[in-house]
Amino acid sequence: MSLEVYKPTIKPSVTTTASAAFVALCVLITGPEPSNAQEAAYVPEFTSDKLLKIPDAKLWREWPFVGSLVTPNAMNDGEAPFPEHHMVYIDPLSWVHYKKTGEFREGTVIAKELTLVRAPDGANEDGSTDEVSGTGYFMGEYSGFEITIKSEELYPDDPGNWAYYSFGHQPEPYNATAMRQPAEACNSCHEAVAAEDFVFTQFYPVLRSVKPK
Amino acid sequence: MSLEVYKPTIKPSVTTTASAAFVALCVLITGPEPSNAQEAAYVPEFTSDKLLKIPDAKLWREWPFVGSLVTPNAMNDGEAPFPEHHMVYIDPLSWVHYKKTGEFREGTVIAKELTLVRAPDGANEDGSTDEVSGTGYFMGEYSGFEITIKSEELYPDDPGNWAYYSFGHQPEPYNATAMRQPAEACNSCHEAVAAEDFVFTQFYPVLRSVKPK
Repeated sequence: MSLEVYKPTIKPSVTTTASAAFVALCVLITGPEPSNAQEAAYVPEFTSDKLLKIPDAKLWREWPFVGSLVTPNAMNDGEAPFPEHHMVYIDPLSWVHYKKTGEFREGTVIAKELTLVRAPDGANEDGSTDEVSGTGYFMGEYSGFEITIKSEELYPDDPGNWAYYSFGHQPEPYNATAMRQPAEACNSCHEAVAAEDFVFTQFYPVLRSVKPK
Repeated sequence: MSLEVYKPTIKPSVTTTASAAFVALCVLITGPEPSNAQEAAYVPEFTSDKLLKIPDAKLWREWPFVGSLVTPNAMNDGEAPFPEHHMVYIDPLSWVHYKKTGEFREGTVIAKELTLVRAPDGANEDGSTDEVSGTGYFMGEYSGFEITIKSEELYPDDPGNWAYYSFGHQPEPYNATAMRQPAEACNSCHEAVAAEDFVFTQFYPVLRSVKPK
């Protein structure tokens, strides 16, 4: 909304400079009040012994969505490393930064929530179900939550300055806190295979579509 | 941000009522200026002959994400009705309404974007690929886009007042406009199988998690 459009009818006598100051004051007082969590900055919180506190699920489930995939248990010897659907989100400010620069900024947070595949009334041998829109893998209940954070300040010695936290592979409630994973548990695979700065952008058309050319 | 917290330091002499009016004026002038599309209202646009114009992809890809699933071609006789990954989003104002009421409001828009499964270097017989996080279905390139709108005003005679539009099952660019589908093409399956008001909430844990009890 342009200030110029509204100035004449509301504050006809003030100068442009005064108007700008007025608007700045308004923003200071009212602040942005998004009804969703999507515009709010998220700053990770830690316990005194450096465990990452789990954010409110209402937060990350409203973040920009960057991709999903499914690794069914039935296709992974009955126990997929990540059971089974993955939903990947990025914090809103880092999304804005990525759209502008094509880079993951200091403080980027990527969240991955998992669900089991849906099989309420049994499933096919490969874990798929036959639904009205076709045979495939549909989402069941939540089954895990993980976060990765990029921060040179917090993780100066981790490859790429990315650290990984898992709040457990289980139904809700997830663990309230998470210990930082050793680099060989998560970071090493990301470093070896991820297409772009430890992020698997090769799996995420959403990120590829907004990356500046 | 609470007005009460900030009032003393900025406008110590005004009454609470005056402060509220001042804040209302500020909001009127400055408006919310989201850097993402997630807070903005979306109003469908039509051509003079009632074709729905496709919105900018930047818009719906920032909407709240409500779920995904995959119906691989390889599991559907080589030609899935919807090839192949489905990403489902809801317009932001209807998301806010759903969180409050558990209902899909007049004007709800649900968008479904499709991608093929990823198989850059070949795939397994079932269309899956073996990736570092497991064997499964990963996202390839965009392959289609569809929208459904609920509106008693626009669609008084459609079951549930839902109308369905497809902008094609093909790589981008999608079709610029879409004709409303006959009820038997889409609506009838939604009516018969969807768990809640023509929406497949049985597949969307995100929606189930925010629905008021």
